[in-house]
Amino acid sequence: MTVLVVGSVALDSVETPFGKADHVLGGSGTFFSASASHLAPVQLVGVIGNDFPIDELKKAFANRPIDLSGLEQQDGASFRWRGRYRHDLNMAETLETHLGVFSNFRPKIPDQFRGAPFVFLGNIDPRLQLDVLTQVSKPKLVACDTMNFWIESRRPDLMQLLEHVDLITLNDAEARQLTEEFNLIKAARWIMAHGPKYVVIKKGEHGAFMFTKDSIFFAPAYPLESVFDPTGAGDSFAGGFIGYLARTNDLSEANLRRAVVYGSAMGSFAVEKFSVQRLLEITPQDIQRRVADFHRLVVFEQDVS
Amino acid sequence: MTVLVVGSVALDSVETPFGKADHVLGGSGTFFSASASHLAPVQLVGVIGNDFPIDELKKAFANRPIDLSGLEQQDGASFRWRGRYRHDLNMAETLETHLGVFSNFRPKIPDQFRGAPFVFLGNIDPRLQLDVLTQVSKPKLVACDTMNFWIESRRPDLMQLLEHVDLITLNDAEARQLTEEFNLIKAARWIMAHGPKYVVIKKGEHGAFMFTKDSIFFAPAYPLESVFDPTGAGDSFAGGFIGYLARTNDLSEANLRRAVVYGSAMGSFAVEKFSVQRLLEITPQDIQRRVADFHRLVVFEQDVS
Repeated sequence: MTVLVVGSVALDSVETPFGKADHVLGGSGTFFSASASHLAPVQLVGVIGNDFPIDELKKAFANRPIDLSGLEQQDGASFRWRGRYRHDLNMAETLETHLGVFSNFRPKIPDQFRGAPFVFLGNIDPRLQLDVLTQVSKPKLVACDTMNFWIESRRPDLMQLLEHVDLITLNDAEARQLTEEFNLIKAARWIMAHGPKYVVIKKGEHGAFMFTKDSIFFAPAYPLESVFDPTGAGDSFAGGFIGYLARTNDLSEANLRRAVVYGSAMGSFAVEKFSVQRLLEITPQDIQRRVADFHRLVVFEQDVS
Repeated sequence: MTVLVVGSVALDSVETPFGKADHVLGGSGTFFSASASHLAPVQLVGVIGNDFPIDELKKAFANRPIDLSGLEQQDGASFRWRGRYRHDLNMAETLETHLGVFSNFRPKIPDQFRGAPFVFLGNIDPRLQLDVLTQVSKPKLVACDTMNFWIESRRPDLMQLLEHVDLITLNDAEARQLTEEFNLIKAARWIMAHGPKYVVIKKGEHGAFMFTKDSIFFAPAYPLESVFDPTGAGDSFAGGFIGYLARTNDLSEANLRRAVVYGSAMGSFAVEKFSVQRLLEITPQDIQRRVADFHRLVVFEQDVS
């Protein structure tokens, strides 16, 4: 099954304790696509400026099932982000954000994308996320991401969006901000009462919770000896998660759990190198191996006493 | 099998967003004993002042297999701690610490305790922890805890202690401080290179890692809707962990993993009420149920593709 993703396609400049990279491929749509495309065909909708190294993107995605025909090029500058991570790699320090053409982004879903059964609305203005939903026809699953900025400035639109999505991914701070509940179980329940059937709360290096009406599932972040660059981990998680659901076309609880693990696995690859570099070089065997490692990390047999 | 624990027996005054409690039973030895005694007989060695409500302690532990004959009463004031938790329950703010007779504590292990097969050296001066080891004969497992204060002020003694313990439990900040490694895998490896075969790194509400030479195991903290008072969670974790090992007398990897889950379960009970209150009222069925809940929280089946 195909996944449609609407998100940013950007150029990142990142500094970590381990090195720096300038003007490399970034953005939620880019990371999501690089990740999900290991599991399912991806249709990417986004906007870039005329300064964007489109050949670099095409080359990067050349061997992947990623349809770039929804990527609009406009006159103006591309979205650029510059950030820094100190030793606490859980926290990005934003040094510069230039929205460029992204500030006028109005997603147009190409006709051939409108029937996509799995839809991921990356972190953009909730008004645009809502607008995308008017352009697609009966997806099997609609998932969205959001962030503090939209929770603050577009709360009514975001609340309206929640009524129309099946699943939301957000981090713990955002869940608390949105719901005004400090406790994550209460926060998740609040969100589910406003629409989504599934809530995934990401805690960065501390793992992720998936809440459904009747259950809680937790997957740790894969413990890596060297986290190189955390940029894009969340979108790569979403890509693995939704990509796995699309590949299997199965929304059972057992499969949703596996999807969270695939998400965590893809997130863990993303942080091993700058940009989408590591996501582009891994093989299906690497992914299987990491999922198996995840299993070994958490598995225990209950005793019978 | 019996567990010998050497630790503090104190009176805590705690304020949380949900209420306050004054001069209630506390201390690492107390929490450890209340927890471990659900799983194995406990021998407690500690010191209290002549102001200590010893009848209250005896009454609390009356129905538990806890031998208090190693609890020394001295002239002077008991160890008292006063602390506060804000909404971020992961972080205690210490308002007052009065060591009292605890500042001259010199543990004397009663003859009838010296053969204990499982020994837990609670968070006291590493010189005293070392001294305890000269008073016991060939335990099957020696575990210790420590804290920032000793890492700073007694590093040489602590390093010497490490050579003589099989297992250490400490939190993530302490592991980083001790090893000067930010990455927890590297920190654990550093510690194992200095003695312990097993390293348990506790991350509070974010769960706990157990490292062995060849493996990493992770157990999340049990997600509770209301964490009432986090005081003693770490010592209750240790009590569940070592208590389970003592009950089963099995140091296999599979059993160590289960022990971590029992530790997490006991830690999760401890925070549901003030002091050792909840630990004293739970039944074996409550514990089994929570361990089963832990399993449901993390279990996933790998696919075969």
